[in-house]
Amino acid sequence: MRSTVNSKLKIAVIGAGYWGPNLARNFSASPEWDLVAICDLDRERAQTLADRAGGNPAVFTDVGELLAQTNLDAVAVATPARTHNGVVMAALRAGKHVLVEKPLADTHERGVAMVQEAAARGLTLMADHTYCYTPAVLKIREIIADGALGDLLFIDSVRINLGLVQPDVDVFWDLAPHDLSIIDFILPGGLRPSVVSAHGADPLGSGKSCIGYLTVPLAGNAIAHVHVNWLSPTKIRRMVIGGTLRTLVWDDLNPQQRLSVYDRGVDLTQQSVDGVDRASSMVSYRLGDTWSPALPEREALGVMASEFAASIRQARPARTDGEAALRVLAVLEAASRSLLISGAMAEVEVTPVPAEAASVAALVEARR
Amino acid sequence: MRSTVNSKLKIAVIGAGYWGPNLARNFSASPEWDLVAICDLDRERAQTLADRAGGNPAVFTDVGELLAQTNLDAVAVATPARTHNGVVMAALRAGKHVLVEKPLADTHERGVAMVQEAAARGLTLMADHTYCYTPAVLKIREIIADGALGDLLFIDSVRINLGLVQPDVDVFWDLAPHDLSIIDFILPGGLRPSVVSAHGADPLGSGKSCIGYLTVPLAGNAIAHVHVNWLSPTKIRRMVIGGTLRTLVWDDLNPQQRLSVYDRGVDLTQQSVDGVDRASSMVSYRLGDTWSPALPEREALGVMASEFAASIRQARPARTDGEAALRVLAVLEAASRSLLISGAMAEVEVTPVPAEAASVAALVEARR
Amino acid sequence: MRSTVNSKLKIAVIGAGYWGPNLARNFSASPEWDLVAICDLDRERAQTLADRAGGNPAVFTDVGELLAQTNLDAVAVATPARTHNGVVMAALRAGKHVLVEKPLADTHERGVAMVQEAAARGLTLMADHTYCYTPAVLKIREIIADGALGDLLFIDSVRINLGLVQPDVDVFWDLAPHDLSIIDFILPGGLRPSVVSAHGADPLGSGKSCIGYLTVPLAGNAIAHVHVNWLSPTKIRRMVIGGTLRTLVWDDLNPQQRLSVYDRGVDLTQQSVDGVDRASSMVSYRLGDTWSPALPEREALGVMASEFAASIRQARPARTDGEAALRVLAVLEAASRSLLISGAMAEVEVTPVPAEAASVAALVEARR
Amino acid sequence: MRSTVNSKLKIAVIGAGYWGPNLARNFSASPEWDLVAICDLDRERAQTLADRAGGNPAVFTDVGELLAQTNLDAVAVATPARTHNGVVMAALRAGKHVLVEKPLADTHERGVAMVQEAAARGLTLMADHTYCYTPAVLKIREIIADGALGDLLFIDSVRINLGLVQPDVDVFWDLAPHDLSIIDFILPGGLRPSVVSAHGADPLGSGKSCIGYLTVPLAGNAIAHVHVNWLSPTKIRRMVIGGTLRTLVWDDLNPQQRLSVYDRGVDLTQQSVDGVDRASSMVSYRLGDTWSPALPEREALGVMASEFAASIRQARPARTDGEAALRVLAVLEAASRSLLISGAMAEVEVTPVPAEAASVAALVEARR
Repeated sequence: MRSTVNSKLKIAVIGAGYWGPNLARNFSASPEWDLVAICDLDRERAQTLADRAGGNPAVFTDVGELLAQTNLDAVAVATPARTHNGVVMAALRAGKHVLVEKPLADTHERGVAMVQEAAARGLTLMADHTYCYTPAVLKIREIIADGALGDLLFIDSVRINLGLVQPDVDVFWDLAPHDLSIIDFILPGGLRPSVVSAHGADPLGSGKSCIGYLTVPLAGNAIAHVHVNWLSPTKIRRMVIGGTLRTLVWDDLNPQQRLSVYDRGVDLTQQSVDGVDRASSMVSYRLGDTWSPALPEREALGVMASEFAASIRQARPARTDGEAALRVLAVLEAASRSLLISGAMAEVEVTPVPAEAASVAALVEARR
Repeated sequence: MRSTVNSKLKIAVIGAGYWGPNLARNFSASPEWDLVAICDLDRERAQTLADRAGGNPAVFTDVGELLAQTNLDAVAVATPARTHNGVVMAALRAGKHVLVEKPLADTHERGVAMVQEAAARGLTLMADHTYCYTPAVLKIREIIADGALGDLLFIDSVRINLGLVQPDVDVFWDLAPHDLSIIDFILPGGLRPSVVSAHGADPLGSGKSCIGYLTVPLAGNAIAHVHVNWLSPTKIRRMVIGGTLRTLVWDDLNPQQRLSVYDRGVDLTQQSVDGVDRASSMVSYRLGDTWSPALPEREALGVMASEFAASIRQARPARTDGEAALRVLAVLEAASRSLLISGAMAEVEVTPVPAEAASVAALVEARR
Repeated sequence: MRSTVNSKLKIAVIGAGYWGPNLARNFSASPEWDLVAICDLDRERAQTLADRAGGNPAVFTDVGELLAQTNLDAVAVATPARTHNGVVMAALRAGKHVLVEKPLADTHERGVAMVQEAAARGLTLMADHTYCYTPAVLKIREIIADGALGDLLFIDSVRINLGLVQPDVDVFWDLAPHDLSIIDFILPGGLRPSVVSAHGADPLGSGKSCIGYLTVPLAGNAIAHVHVNWLSPTKIRRMVIGGTLRTLVWDDLNPQQRLSVYDRGVDLTQQSVDGVDRASSMVSYRLGDTWSPALPEREALGVMASEFAASIRQARPARTDGEAALRVLAVLEAASRSLLISGAMAEVEVTPVPAEAASVAALVEARR
Repeated sequence: MRSTVNSKLKIAVIGAGYWGPNLARNFSASPEWDLVAICDLDRERAQTLADRAGGNPAVFTDVGELLAQTNLDAVAVATPARTHNGVVMAALRAGKHVLVEKPLADTHERGVAMVQEAAARGLTLMADHTYCYTPAVLKIREIIADGALGDLLFIDSVRINLGLVQPDVDVFWDLAPHDLSIIDFILPGGLRPSVVSAHGADPLGSGKSCIGYLTVPLAGNAIAHVHVNWLSPTKIRRMVIGGTLRTLVWDDLNPQQRLSVYDRGVDLTQQSVDGVDRASSMVSYRLGDTWSPALPEREALGVMASEFAASIRQARPARTDGEAALRVLAVLEAASRSLLISGAMAEVEVTPVPAEAASVAALVEARR
């Protein structure tokens, strides 16, 4: 098999619409990738993107034709969500590593099939959870992993804006994948709730929720909550992560101080009352300093392109692998079920991916 | 009966703890009131407040003794919530008008009894929903009443802070009365949901929710949502009120621009599809100007003192009367029930106040 | 002569360094322009830009060769400031219209020669005062022209950041051209002070001012002040324009509310004292509403490209013509002189441009 | 002589107008002081303040009568500035320690006389530079003293608001004493410039500057600049203090983050060029973390009352002693002179206080 270690990896971008140009630009600029082709049903759109991308990539209008190229290691898929399953399965069957725009698939079940296919073939299937590769989120993950926040108490995420009312998905499926993939990324064990509750409203009569509130119970009586809203005149993108030691606030629209770590909090003293250990009303407060770590200026998609290359070369799961994407899908599907029962808790149903998925490295090895 | 029209009304403040001094100061400074007494179980605390209040009010430690004074038109009650019923009922039976700190009572049922008693006696029972008398909330009520926002789509209220973990009530009962009384005040028909959902978390093991999310379906598929949190290191007090025409943002911690009215929004064009009228995907956006009305600098408690006097003199319900307080209590009780069923919708149970309550004016007239 | 009315105008960009790519991108995207060539001493840099720009522009390394092209209406010059005079004079002599990056020239005297040359030849000489074509500044100009602010009282401009210490110019020449060109653009009569004062500091010993304060007396006892600073850890770009009726605040780093017009102010009542009209101490305050006009999302350089085309086709001075650029240069030179006399007022010396400059239209007509 | 060590010190407040009540409230609440009298020409105003102050202070309308009281250690003077000299000299001659509201006197010369008188008598003369005792300024002083900012490069202070146009003083004398006293307080050696420059504008024709810019050259080629403005519709109180190591920003209107210390800056590498050490163009940038120290919630006037007591008991100069106030006066007078010469640098004239002023401790000792 061709070596992918010493030379640049070769990639094609499938889908030249809204997001494809960003992928093309970053893979084109990456020292680890050669952008060798652009594929779109609309030849003119593909050609325009190819012209602008540099490196003179080939243009295809047929995915099958593209995938028949032997001179191709991977594809980046930026087509509409309902087509992800078909395109990605074809690419995997053609032996290509795959990066796919969020959401991984339009149903959890189809996503599972894709993850299984990749695992069976020892190929990397990576989700384009772009936010996870921003300097801010990488830093949050590091701060949490270092234990600087202590045990997590709550995560409150707000993502509201005067947004495009989407024709086919509600505000949960449109915006919450960002919040959920980030939460999955920064939680040491990933996002694995057993139930979730969702409340939505459609006051304009658009046929789907334009305003959404999602409640996700976390381990240790902690709670995550996500507020998404297409109808807000002001734009807010803020996540607060409270811990027993410190609390972190991420304000993504404040470039001068995106992250703030507050050394403030509430302490409850455990007391033994009548022989039973219970939290007492002995409350104390810490009002300590605030710290804002400096963040490097790096484009998230460039970091993601590197991670995609590294996961292929090292035959290891990507940081935002297919399984992470499945966890996000499972929560979204449970949220949709909760909406149907007026916000009562709905179970998060996870189809386990068969054991052979674990043998990625072996399979990759075998293919060399 | 004594005339209350041409001379100042006479009032006593019961409870000289946290809130009592604010009441005393404002009634003392009001041109419509004479502060004639302070009552507290702790004589020294009562005396200290009396010394500072000006006007040389008398000091009592026994409510019964205070209420026996004929030289007293009204009392303002700022004792702990669980004592409200007893103190207020005694005051009403003694023929005094009553202003009572929020919440009206510790249960909806006891609140109903108080409202009935006041109605039966033709006395004013007013809730100290202080926020409703701030220049900002008065202006919001006016803007909504004028139709400037169009039909309401959503109300999103956030009230978070590093707050005192209360020994006896959870974060809903501690903070949400503010949001709920404000929403009740600004909604043209008051806050009358049939169900509510509440999600809480107690990650510190304090025995009660320290973080709360409350969802309140409103008429016309609109939604209200309240986020209260004792564990946030940053302080936010912001309410967004979205309408079909405009959206209003109230940022109470921004004294330079508390209210902003955005002439922005989403318009859906109704289309007839296959003979059926439905919202189509014809979406358009307005990106108009923003307007921030100037607000007078006035202390809310002073305005409330005037309203209390006016409702007595004009024998009309106060703007935040006992019934308004009952509506808030009913939502809080339903929220507590929802918490017990994991956030599923719980019915808001309202005990109707008997018809004679409507005859306040007649009764007041009769007493003259 | 070739018609420039019905077809696209043809332009070349000279200088492919920092700013050239922005010019190339905008002229390339403009419906009024054909980008036909890129010129840079460094052929590879020129070629890279040409590849990315679209439209397949030719590549030149020699300005003379470029200007010899008859298939060229105009050039956009983005070379270092000290080369502006040479390149622009050559272009004008070759009969090309010229857009030139700020500052127009490295001395006022050389700038005058360029303006005279353009006038004598009936060619458009336009300064790339990019900020003037932002939606915010265009709106400010309109608001002032409409009289909404009343008479101007003061302009206070702050432009500070952790900036690049430039090797050849001080902070005044690096940053203040932005503020001065904007002030010139929005003042109905342009910026024509007779004296200015400048205070600078070089605490790092870099050999030039890194911190600067510029005071510019305006007509009617008004004042303009500009604060520029390379050493500030926080970034501020704010201009306050106070008038007798209203005051406008432009906060360029607040995309959600760049412009705010405050209907607040101080009124002095004129009183006749001892038969002499003088301002008395009768002061009153207005505390009215605030209004934030919606601004379109448009790239300033695109608007500027249109203006450049329009000024050529209509044979009229561009909004930011060479004379505007001269006024900015004159203030900068006076500021440098003021620095040498410890901030005492230095005269602004303006070499008048000969009268024939006024006959632009006639000359342009003659050339057709 | 009476002991002032073991018992509370006795103080009277002279002047019951705008500021007097704040002084009375704080001295009354202080564990180190007994508020024994209030003096004002207007008996009713004095009586009202005495009633509210607690502790039943005596009321005087005549300063001479007040000062004749032997039962009085000190006076706090909050009368109009032009009366300071007379009242303070009388108090000192009566052997009272004196706290005086800013400015110390209406001229530097009269201030010198007051400082001399206090020194000669071994009495404490302290200026009420209230801001210096806020938690923020105390922390800034500490941070600078610790060397955390490195060498100071610049201080930029902005204090603007829609302010009261004062009948008798210009905006420099009204507002800049705050900035100057703070700068004097935080600079390790105090504020001792040899020259200053001031630019003012009076566009409303009020007869005095309503807008002011003050430039103060500091040691080491550093610079301080103060912008004061009565006509700004927005309120800003911000000081930026740049150092070679870090830069501090104090935003007094942001209670959630008043102080921010930025570990960012510009480094110039010293190179030897042609045998001469000079700063070269080798510039590098640090983009480090930001740190916001927690500040205690304490009222500045209470801290100041303690410092006044401590300076008396320890017979040492107060932190904001008369000499500090003289330094502020000297700069203000020089600023006024600079205004008369169009902003050219004016010398700061300091009358030296005779040497015996240094013998405070000895004199105090002698008086016991």
